[in-house]
Amino acid sequence: MTALYGGIEAGGTKFVCAVGDAQGNLQTRVHFPTTTPEETLQHVFEFFDQYQLTALAIGSFGPIDINPDSDTYGYITDTPKEGWRMFDFYGSMKRRYPDLKIVWTTDVNVAAYGEYRHAQLTNQSVQDNILYTTIGTGVGSGFIYHGSLYQAYSHPETGHILVRHAPDDTFSGDCPYHGDCLEGMAAGPALEKRAGKKAQELAPDDPLWKLEAYYIAQACVDYTLQFAPAQLIFGGGVMNQEQLFPLVREEFTKLLNGYVATPNPDEYIIHARLGDNAGIVGSILLAAEAK
Amino acid sequence: MTALYGGIEAGGTKFVCAVGDAQGNLQTRVHFPTTTPEETLQHVFEFFDQYQLTALAIGSFGPIDINPDSDTYGYITDTPKEGWRMFDFYGSMKRRYPDLKIVWTTDVNVAAYGEYRHAQLTNQSVQDNILYTTIGTGVGSGFIYHGSLYQAYSHPETGHILVRHAPDDTFSGDCPYHGDCLEGMAAGPALEKRAGKKAQELAPDDPLWKLEAYYIAQACVDYTLQFAPAQLIFGGGVMNQEQLFPLVREEFTKLLNGYVATPNPDEYIIHARLGDNAGIVGSILLAAEAK
Repeated sequence: MTALYGGIEAGGTKFVCAVGDAQGNLQTRVHFPTTTPEETLQHVFEFFDQYQLTALAIGSFGPIDINPDSDTYGYITDTPKEGWRMFDFYGSMKRRYPDLKIVWTTDVNVAAYGEYRHAQLTNQSVQDNILYTTIGTGVGSGFIYHGSLYQAYSHPETGHILVRHAPDDTFSGDCPYHGDCLEGMAAGPALEKRAGKKAQELAPDDPLWKLEAYYIAQACVDYTLQFAPAQLIFGGGVMNQEQLFPLVREEFTKLLNGYVATPNPDEYIIHARLGDNAGIVGSILLAAEAK
Repeated sequence: MTALYGGIEAGGTKFVCAVGDAQGNLQTRVHFPTTTPEETLQHVFEFFDQYQLTALAIGSFGPIDINPDSDTYGYITDTPKEGWRMFDFYGSMKRRYPDLKIVWTTDVNVAAYGEYRHAQLTNQSVQDNILYTTIGTGVGSGFIYHGSLYQAYSHPETGHILVRHAPDDTFSGDCPYHGDCLEGMAAGPALEKRAGKKAQELAPDDPLWKLEAYYIAQACVDYTLQFAPAQLIFGGGVMNQEQLFPLVREEFTKLLNGYVATPNPDEYIIHARLGDNAGIVGSILLAAEAK
């Protein structure tokens, strides 16, 4: 019997749960909306109760506590998400599955790992230093530094960097912590508030995409100047709008103005190869490789 | 005889050269202004010709090419500094001292390493993930990640991140690449253009320090959200103004608004312990530990 691994991609809007093999091939994948912690975890338990797992990895929205020495290790901490603040996610899973090896990290870390490790396992060329950024309900990044998940005092929270307003942009931002940080200006909800409708309903040539690209390009510049990555990979609902990529690359090139060497923008700023499966595949692979 | 190591801290304004021992104790230290590459290197050669060195490390202003596979490895690349663009610094040193082991890295990397390693060698407590940032003629950072110098596709260039203008700040910035990036708004030359005199001549309670702190605090927020370091250490001429630190910490706390956990600001945002010697001590230590 092939060993079976579990993965949870816990987002602020929806949860994805899956089981799969050590190569990241998914056997079963389910998803449900993120409601209260109790109700949501009930669905998680119902799904995983059906399987005999070798290990499981959780990639959770955050910020989360990833310091094993901390009293609140495994908690979601300062999230603006109703009901989830200081929720003991890892502990809740451990109480249900006390003998199971459980990996605890961020939702963006599992996606970054998915993009990196799946490409390796399928013999696709992949860089060693890649920054995966999701732009969806929120904005955040996971970073693979020389092949390993980056983690210093804590994990990066790149969604809340300060950005400049476009000259004619009067939107005041909707991040409950910072108002007009990157997430407040450019995540899905901000885009929809500006548009007055779902982002998917906007025409691909709607001027709002150019405005959106301006904010994403600022992020690309700041990420480049700080992490100096070999590739900027984007996922999340907003980034499924492929028309964004050329706009972001163009604005990025303008803003950086040739100051540091980066790979060609067409190969540097790219869409996640695994698309919306990056996170769940990554969590299965992280579980499979857990020591 | 104790082995002797050489260090060069090559800044845009001045060069510091020194020889010292494996503990970073300086035996002789000289400095001279950065003029043309030819004239400046002549001073460097005159100094080091006097010694029999075991190894030497160069910490250079940048951006520099640190990719050993590159045709321009060892060059200063896109600098706005007159005469130094595409100067083969490492090669010039190698041609003069062909048998000497020479380490090539950024000026801010040697300073970061100095702050980290010297504290270890002198049994002072030191964190594992520290970001050293200089604010002087330019702005830049070196990062010690889990005890090693951070280097991905290239080295960070944190001085050129995008910042927001303070509401009443009409200064347009003086970075030749970006105008009003962090360096353009907050490096020493910007401060002096605003003041109309040397920054050292400003009173400690001059309102310009508060404005300066606003820009530095934005950098602290962005560095925190990206690198998630355990400590932000500042050096460089501007940061010798101790009155900046409480102002930066206050503004940082306001801007971050409690979103992610950091150490107490008083211990988190600090002045370099080695002061203006961080770079030269770090280069000696890097030389001593070169493999």
